[in-house]
This record gives sequence, C-alpha cells and structure tokens, in this order.
Amino acid sequence: MNAEIVAVGSELLTPRRSDTNSLYLTGRLNELGVEVTTKTIVGDDRERLRDTVRLALSRAHIVILTGGLGPTEDDVTRDAVATALGRNQLFRQDLCDGIEARFRLRGRPMAEINRRQAYLIEGAEALPNPNGTAPGQWIEEQGRAVLLLPGPPNELQPMFEEHCLPRLERLLPKQAIRTRVLRVANMPESEVDQKIAPVYTRYTNPATTILAAAGDIQIHLRARSGSVAEATNLVEALAAEIEPLLGDRIYSRNGDPLEVVVGGRLRERGETLSVAESCTGGMLAERITSVAGSSDYFVGGFLVYGDRMKTALLGVPEALLREHTAVSKPAAEAMALGARERTGAAWAVSITGVAGPSGGTEAAPVGTVFIGVAGPDGCRVHHARHMGDRTRVRALATQTALDLLRRRLG
Amino acid sequence: MNAEIVAVGSELLTPRRSDTNSLYLTGRLNELGVEVTTKTIVGDDRERLRDTVRLALSRAHIVILTGGLGPTEDDVTRDAVATALGRNQLFRQDLCDGIEARFRLRGRPMAEINRRQAYLIEGAEALPNPNGTAPGQWIEEQGRAVLLLPGPPNELQPMFEEHCLPRLERLLPKQAIRTRVLRVANMPESEVDQKIAPVYTRYTNPATTILAAAGDIQIHLRARSGSVAEATNLVEALAAEIEPLLGDRIYSRNGDPLEVVVGGRLRERGETLSVAESCTGGMLAERITSVAGSSDYFVGGFLVYGDRMKTALLGVPEALLREHTAVSKPAAEAMALGARERTGAAWAVSITGVAGPSGGTEAAPVGTVFIGVAGPDGCRVHHARHMGDRTRVRALATQTALDLLRRRLG
Repeated sequence: MNAEIVAVGSELLTPRRSDTNSLYLTGRLNELGVEVTTKTIVGDDRERLRDTVRLALSRAHIVILTGGLGPTEDDVTRDAVATALGRNQLFRQDLCDGIEARFRLRGRPMAEINRRQAYLIEGAEALPNPNGTAPGQWIEEQGRAVLLLPGPPNELQPMFEEHCLPRLERLLPKQAIRTRVLRVANMPESEVDQKIAPVYTRYTNPATTILAAAGDIQIHLRARSGSVAEATNLVEALAAEIEPLLGDRIYSRNGDPLEVVVGGRLRERGETLSVAESCTGGMLAERITSVAGSSDYFVGGFLVYGDRMKTALLGVPEALLREHTAVSKPAAEAMALGARERTGAAWAVSITGVAGPSGGTEAAPVGTVFIGVAGPDGCRVHHARHMGDRTRVRALATQTALDLLRRRLG
Repeated sequence: MNAEIVAVGSELLTPRRSDTNSLYLTGRLNELGVEVTTKTIVGDDRERLRDTVRLALSRAHIVILTGGLGPTEDDVTRDAVATALGRNQLFRQDLCDGIEARFRLRGRPMAEINRRQAYLIEGAEALPNPNGTAPGQWIEEQGRAVLLLPGPPNELQPMFEEHCLPRLERLLPKQAIRTRVLRVANMPESEVDQKIAPVYTRYTNPATTILAAAGDIQIHLRARSGSVAEATNLVEALAAEIEPLLGDRIYSRNGDPLEVVVGGRLRERGETLSVAESCTGGMLAERITSVAGSSDYFVGGFLVYGDRMKTALLGVPEALLREHTAVSKPAAEAMALGARERTGAAWAVSITGVAGPSGGTEAAPVGTVFIGVAGPDGCRVHHARHMGDRTRVRALATQTALDLLRRRLG
C-alpha cells in the first residue's frame, strides 16, 4: 500500500517554510506499513491542484491533502478535489450550525464566508475538528481513500489520530515493519554499493536504501510481513549477509552517529578523552559534546589555531614546527601527546591541516590533514587529503578522527 | 515566469528528512522574479518520476530536478527525464575521463558503475561539478529550461551559482533587483516586527521578508525595477527608514553573519581573540573558525568541559568553584581572564552553563549561561537563561557571546 501527500498553500512555497505536516503523516503511515511514494506542495491554484490530485489518484492507494480548507477564495482544496473526482459539493446545515456555534462560544458572529466550510464533497464523511472551524473530509472510492485535512498541526494531528487512523486500519491489510540501519565511515557510496549490491538486489523485501553524507554512509534495511517475528527474521537475515562484506567499516548497527558510538565505548571502558584541534577549530569537540552526558568521558582540550599556541599551550617544540611545519606528522604527534599529558585523559586526538580555501603549499595542499590518536598504547598518526570546500574538509577531518579513535578503542 | 522543483530520493520521504535544497533554490529563483508554483518529492521510481516531470513540463517555464544523479541503480533522474522528454542519452568520454581523474586524485580506482554518470541527455549541456562526481545537466526546449542538479547541497549550490544563474538570467526578461539584508541578534521576531511593521507594510516594492533563526533575525528588503539606479534608490530609502528603529541591535547591513562581522572588526583593530568554552564545547570556536582567514585574528583557546580542567588549564581556583560552582559569574570571569593571560590575546570570551537536558540545579537551572568578555579594558560577565533543547541553548549561548564581543569592539 502506498500514499501520496499533497500540501496546499502558497505560503509553503517561500524560501523559509517547510511542510512539517507531511513528516508527521509519514511517520504514522509508515507505522501502518504504508509507504509514502510522493509528496507535493502546490500553491493556491485550482487547476494546478486538480491536475496534481488526478496524478496522485492514478497511482496511490491513499491521497492525503493538507491545508486549503479555510473560508477564503484562496482556499481551493475542496473545489480542486471535487473536480478531480468528478463529484459535486453539498451544503450541510448541521456542519454550518457547528461552525456558527463555535463562533458564538467566542462571542463573535460567524462571517458569511465561513458558510463555505460547510460544503462536503458528495459521498464524503465529515471529520470533526474540535480545534478549528474547518471540518476534515474522508472519501472512499474503489478501495482508495482521499483525506482532506486542515493545515494547522494542532488541528490536523488530533483529527488524524482520532478519526483517520481507525478508518485506515480498517482499510489496510495487517502488516508489521522492522528496520535496521547500518552506518559506515569514510567509504565512497559507490564502493559500498559495489560490495553489497550483489546481496541486497536479490531482495525486494527487505528493501534497501543507501544514503550518503560527507564521510558517512547509511544503509537502511526495511522488512515487512504479516508477523513481527517474520519481519524481524527477514531484516536480521539480510543484515547478517551484508555485515561480513563491510566488516569493521561498520561503526553502528542501530543508526547511532559516530560521536555516540565512540562515547559509548569510552563509557564502557571507563576512559576519558581530550582533543587538540587546529584546522577544525572546535568542530570535533562540538560533535563530541553535542551528546547529552558526554561530560562522563570528555574532559576538554586545546584549540591551537596559530603556531604560537601549539608551542605555548601544548609544548610542541618551535624547532619541530620550523623543520616540519605545523601540518605534518611530527606536529600531529606532538599535539596529541601534549594534550594527553596536560589533561591527564586516557586518550587524546589531534587534528592539524589546511582547510582552505587558501594556505595550501606544495608539501601540504588544501585538504591535507594529519590526525594523531594518543592512548595508553602510544600515538599513531593518520594522513589524508580530503576534497571539497572548507566546510567539507573540516567535516571529513572530524569524521576520520572519530573513526580512527573508534578502531583504537576496539 | 514560474518554476517547479522536483527532489528525487526515497530517503527524502522518511519521517525525519526534509528537502532543504528547494528552499535555497526558491530563494534564488525569487530574486530573479521567478515564482515557484509547485514542489514535489518523488522516490527512486522511474515511472512515478517520469509522470511527475511530464506534469511539471506541461505547466512550468523552468523545471529543476535535484538528486538521483549518483552511480547506482537507484539513481533514476537521468532516465526518467530522458523518457519524459522523449530523448536519448549519449555516453561522453570526456565526462568519464573527468570522473576517473577525480578518483585518481584521491588514490582510488573508478568503479565501473561510475561510468553511468558520464551519460548526457541528448541536447543537454554538461554543468561541471568540482565538488562531486555527478555532472549537472542544462536542457532547453521551446523556451523552457530543464535543470538536473546533484543532491548534496555543497555540490548543488556552487553549480547553481556559477552555471545556472547566468543561463537563467539570459533566458528571463530583464529586470533589475536590488536587495539589502539587515541582521539583528537576540531579539524575538515579534518584537522586531512590532517596531518595523508600521514602516515596511506601507510598501509592496521593496518587498520585506523577516526570517527568524535561534537568536538571529534577518530582514530582507528586495526592490525590483527596470533600472538598477531606481531599484537601488528604492531599497536604500526603505533601509534608511528601518535602521533608526533598531539602532545598534543591527549587527549587519549586508547579510554577513555575526562571526564574519566580529572577525572584520578584530582585523580592523589589529587585535586577537581567544576562547574558553565549557558547555558549548567548541561550538563558539567552530563558528569563528568557519570563516576563511580567521587565523588572522583567532589564536585558539581552551575546552574546559570538566571542573578539573578549568583549574588545570585556566587556573580557576578550586575554592572559587567550590564556593560558587562552575556555572557562576566568578567562574566565567576567572575563565575569561585565565584564557586571556595564557594565550596573550587582546580579547578572551568564556562560556559556562547548563546545556541540559540534565545537570540543572535550583541556583542554575537548565539553560543558565554565564558569558565573560575580557579585554584591554577589563572583564564583564553577562548572565542569561535560554529556553529550548541542548542544541538551542548552546546555539543561543554562542550567538550572545559573539554579540557581546561585537558591542565591546565598538
């Protein structure tokens, strides 16, 4: 079973507004085993909305419209859906009385234009709206459902919970859904796909989706079945086939981000962490401390942006910086060891590099990053060159640093 | 002129993901006088995408597709658009060579499946992508334009700025547009609006838009006219009316963010800056160093997450912490002074507080933040309580810290 969601309103087509109703609806529909296959936002335009609804009806079991149920000329949802379905609209005195009573309760007369909200598409059931004037509408046609819901979330959500969910459950075959999210650091999407596609393409259930961000790949597995046990079996069986292909490149089996995984390992080991950041300027520590409770294992560290600070705060010898420069293996090592010693933490991670856009040299072009990880068993330094702009180089450096630490923590 | 935007990717149809590219594109298109009339998100499905593109082509002058240009079977945008337009796809050896060179630069072989990204729809111009493997495509048909752009924002935005804007400007009727962006820190949106609405509501040209983020309000003024001089006059006249109403709460008159404004003032004064961060854990320094060239004035600083580090790294007396706790005016002052002395920077900013969700006390509930600014003329401490979750409390603390420093820098 699949659904399309259509949000109506020109205000949702401005540069700063997002349609958040569809996120809520997607969550609820997914829980019922219904996949959302298309979402559309249409301005207050009868013809465009009519054509969008027609296309949605041609390919979805459930079509949900949100917004555009108000009393003004701009509110085109009722008209557009009626036209798309080829149905009339009927005035309902009982709905009009309800709207009028609502106004009276607030000590105001009902404006004449509010009568528009008392029209129902032929064959529709009215859905009560205790939090606003616009009733919702539920229409069934040939096993398909069309829902008209008000735009304000505080009206839409209670209406959906109370009046739409029970109707949808009656309409839908019983289905359980189980998901698993594997995460992999610092592998290109194409390389991950090449390794695992021969496995996952053999199955349509579980369905597999691969999502890529800077230095971070998420593999979403999603199984459906009539029983929870069977859905669980399906998803776990596929995960068991995929995991050996990626081995220890997988850092998370439940969707947790890298900073949560590393924090969890440190907490288990009862060990502490410090940092010494140059080119990332606090980005690594910011990620680590974005996790609530990170004070259990993160003690602090040093921002040594200039060379002089590397010497003054971390004791990196001036001669070392003169000979090797600050973007070098010896500098990264001295920074990590200096931070570990000065904080007394079990672990220290250092990052030094050239984030760009300027500052590159022949020996250390823009994107060059050295990462030191010092721990109870000594210090190792990793060297990489990342491509992209300043933001991306810095993000990839923090991702690499966290992944190196994860591997050392075992 | 109107545009439709189609985002491609099943991952954008999950309950937690939003399509942010379309917000950026809408902003840029609006500046060109192009209205966005429909936005659609379609999963990785050839037929659905083909039908959506056909509907968009039937009613929009400009159709922009984002995402789905990757190398895997899931990446259906090229195929769907070619089918919707009834055109073939042609393999381009030069594009393939470019993709291969990109892999070589990173010391990796190109996977066979990446060859897919070297196919161009017949009649399309390839748009270079310096930040990724997928080239974009620009197609003109009967005065309409179809754009295929990569999904990652760091690839899409530079490509749009450099290669799409000039082509769109050539296609569109000539119109001069002049904008001005005023920015205000730490004022509620309603308060800003109450002050300036009596002025800006008198004009439809320039149009005024107010955008609100955590602790940051942007006021966008946008004038259109047949001549550049007239558009400039219109926008400057409105700005001159608004600015006195907000006075020194305005920190930027050209849209620059606070970290750029503060950096510019430090550079003008030839002075340096250091930080000492507790609850923000590097977020303040990360913002400061996100600006290219920030090494001119930012020297570094201290992450003193635990109390012990405040004493060990900054010399905050243990007795002071025992008596007043780490979230207190004396602690913030000692941190700022300690950082200034140890780094030798002209200025030092300290932040200590309770970001939550736990750790609050009666004296310092969650959201309490003390910010110290130490400079050549002494140290002052600011106390605030911010509402919201951990991320928001931390973001508001860095925003307040930067604005306090801006005011001290005069």
